[in-house]
Amino acid sequence: LRFFKWVGDILMEILQNRTMDTSNIRRPTLLVDVKKAKKNIAKMAQLASSLGIPLRPHFKTPQSLQAGEWYREAGVDCITVSSVTMAAYFMEGGWRDIIIAFPVNLRELPLLNDLSSKGKIGLILDSVEVAKQLSAGLLHAVDIWIEVDCGQNRSGVPVLAKEQVLNLAQALDKLPHLRFAGILSHAGHSYQARGKAAILEVHAQALADLQSLKLHLIRKGFPHAKLSYGDTPTCSVAANFEEVDELRPGNFVFYDLMQEQIGACVEEQVAVALACPVVAVYPERGIAILHGGAVHLSKDFLVDPMLGQHFGKIALPAMGGWTTSLPGSYLKSLSQEHGVAVLSKELIPLVHPGDLLMALPVHSCLCADLMGGWMGSDGMWYEMMPRPGLGNGNKKNTG
Amino acid sequence: LRFFKWVGDILMEILQNRTMDTSNIRRPTLLVDVKKAKKNIAKMAQLASSLGIPLRPHFKTPQSLQAGEWYREAGVDCITVSSVTMAAYFMEGGWRDIIIAFPVNLRELPLLNDLSSKGKIGLILDSVEVAKQLSAGLLHAVDIWIEVDCGQNRSGVPVLAKEQVLNLAQALDKLPHLRFAGILSHAGHSYQARGKAAILEVHAQALADLQSLKLHLIRKGFPHAKLSYGDTPTCSVAANFEEVDELRPGNFVFYDLMQEQIGACVEEQVAVALACPVVAVYPERGIAILHGGAVHLSKDFLVDPMLGQHFGKIALPAMGGWTTSLPGSYLKSLSQEHGVAVLSKELIPLVHPGDLLMALPVHSCLCADLMGGWMGSDGMWYEMMPRPGLGNGNKKNTG
Repeated sequence: LRFFKWVGDILMEILQNRTMDTSNIRRPTLLVDVKKAKKNIAKMAQLASSLGIPLRPHFKTPQSLQAGEWYREAGVDCITVSSVTMAAYFMEGGWRDIIIAFPVNLRELPLLNDLSSKGKIGLILDSVEVAKQLSAGLLHAVDIWIEVDCGQNRSGVPVLAKEQVLNLAQALDKLPHLRFAGILSHAGHSYQARGKAAILEVHAQALADLQSLKLHLIRKGFPHAKLSYGDTPTCSVAANFEEVDELRPGNFVFYDLMQEQIGACVEEQVAVALACPVVAVYPERGIAILHGGAVHLSKDFLVDPMLGQHFGKIALPAMGGWTTSLPGSYLKSLSQEHGVAVLSKELIPLVHPGDLLMALPVHSCLCADLMGGWMGSDGMWYEMMPRPGLGNGNKKNTG
Repeated sequence: LRFFKWVGDILMEILQNRTMDTSNIRRPTLLVDVKKAKKNIAKMAQLASSLGIPLRPHFKTPQSLQAGEWYREAGVDCITVSSVTMAAYFMEGGWRDIIIAFPVNLRELPLLNDLSSKGKIGLILDSVEVAKQLSAGLLHAVDIWIEVDCGQNRSGVPVLAKEQVLNLAQALDKLPHLRFAGILSHAGHSYQARGKAAILEVHAQALADLQSLKLHLIRKGFPHAKLSYGDTPTCSVAANFEEVDELRPGNFVFYDLMQEQIGACVEEQVAVALACPVVAVYPERGIAILHGGAVHLSKDFLVDPMLGQHFGKIALPAMGGWTTSLPGSYLKSLSQEHGVAVLSKELIPLVHPGDLLMALPVHSCLCADLMGGWMGSDGMWYEMMPRPGLGNGNKKNTG
């Protein structure tokens, strides 16, 4: 039986490879290894399931209704998004339990009222001032999560300011349409960590502080207060999530070179690469020019101990995907459309204008957001949400 | 008469201001001061006209057919673009003389053949290898410009390698469908300059080398060889363009803080700003959180002697536009959707969640590309070209 499964897997692999045909790629195109992405989802769903809590993945990374199906297959039924527009896109696509993990924007009340009439919307805020204005403008009930800053130092009430959080919870309790749900925190400072030990250190401190805050709320009259937590680095390496009521990582579906440098994944787990046509090769300078620039990859960069500052690593196309990154080959600079690739001595004689090279991105969220869609290794074209900045959407909602 | 013109201007101003209504802005929205943009175009058109040569502006900055009309009004009838897709968009909109100032991508031959059947297409390349493959695949004649590297060190034949350029010109001459037009160069190293003297130094060296190369070609059998040249910094400050046959700057239509730091413009000429809703204010930390992040502004940053590293400066909305940037107020970091703004002591007590702040972008080309459209001070909504990375476009052209 095992043998037949093995033969079946190989046949599936051949069929899948046949459908992802890179020979027709004419310009920068994002490729996604669907098998890897699904494996990344399965692993995270398994973590949540072993903890007995929901996985509420952040969809700002894939931003795609079609990719949403991968998560549904893994049992996911609640999600996180980063804007009201993104919430509208996913609600339109059938998702009915959505946290907008971005501080309430009071200018978007009309769209919020529309959304909260159709499904369960969770919002985050950290001030009584905003809570009051929100409450006054809402027509339907929404869940309210108090945003707590557990160390990132961006937005949220400081995790140690327990009385401030309690006072806010008490104020929320009296305001119409606001259902206090609990505290929500993003340990974004885990992105500064390098290595598993450093990630676990960030996690241990953040979790201890958040647990203590949650228990304070429970003791002081909010027995149902929940804790929403979880970023890709901590959720990729930690095992202890006691008192956490839901996990909210996002980037893990694709991972990227930044996550690899942080220590949240290994390169084999990176499920995206940008296919870039080669347009010029300068063997004497060790350089090739790729069509693949800042409007495709974003200007996010890493500083690598060996390569220095770079905007992505270079791999070769391979059956159904791409090889591991090639030693000494990376994007050293980006213009609007140009990528300047340093290629190793071994590689450069093999590369010619008209070839394709694969760029592993530094930051897959921004790269996907720029590309707006991708070619899956399953042969499907995946559409992403239309850009909110695009005329139609914006015009419609500014009026 | 002067008095009536003055009254007329004021009336126009009032009418224009009435049409740009920022009170309805709900989320990050790009605003363009159309008057400033047209003034920037008029000034550049005046330079070209005084030199007796065409202005062939780079449209990768505005990427909009509607904005193209501003240039037509200033007498422009030939343009530059950075991709084949962008050429297709502008040709569809009636532009018939287009240089694609990006090294020929051999994978895009089908679309190139389509375009060159409809209008005058100019392409750039720097190798015989590419020229031969291009010629073999073309169905119609195109102009070929030899790309020359005058110091940027990205792509092109080094400007001092005169024999290499001559050999390439001779090879082009024998290949079907290729009409050798001349040499094309981008002094992109002017972006490293700070101050007018430094820009002029880059310009003087680049121009001298390019003049010498052009004269070499003229003497050696190519009497009609032209020189296409010009980036925003050099075209904004230099006056001598002897032997230059067309000017190709792009960014000047909007300018931005990078151009201001380079010394190519003053802040008053910057014609774009991103309107950002304020979602949280922390007076004790001197910080406000704006809706306006990396997916709106890009991750391009500047290092300012006073402010340090920043992603944009902060201004206030004003009748029909925005104020000058406020001292000590800037974006110190960006996440995907969040902008973390440092606000001065004077400003912060005046700012509340639900307000709008204006971010002057570091790099207007990338910001506009991300936003996909803008609200003009003339009350019009300007659509930009649909993103080539978006599913439809890409799918259509990969097949």
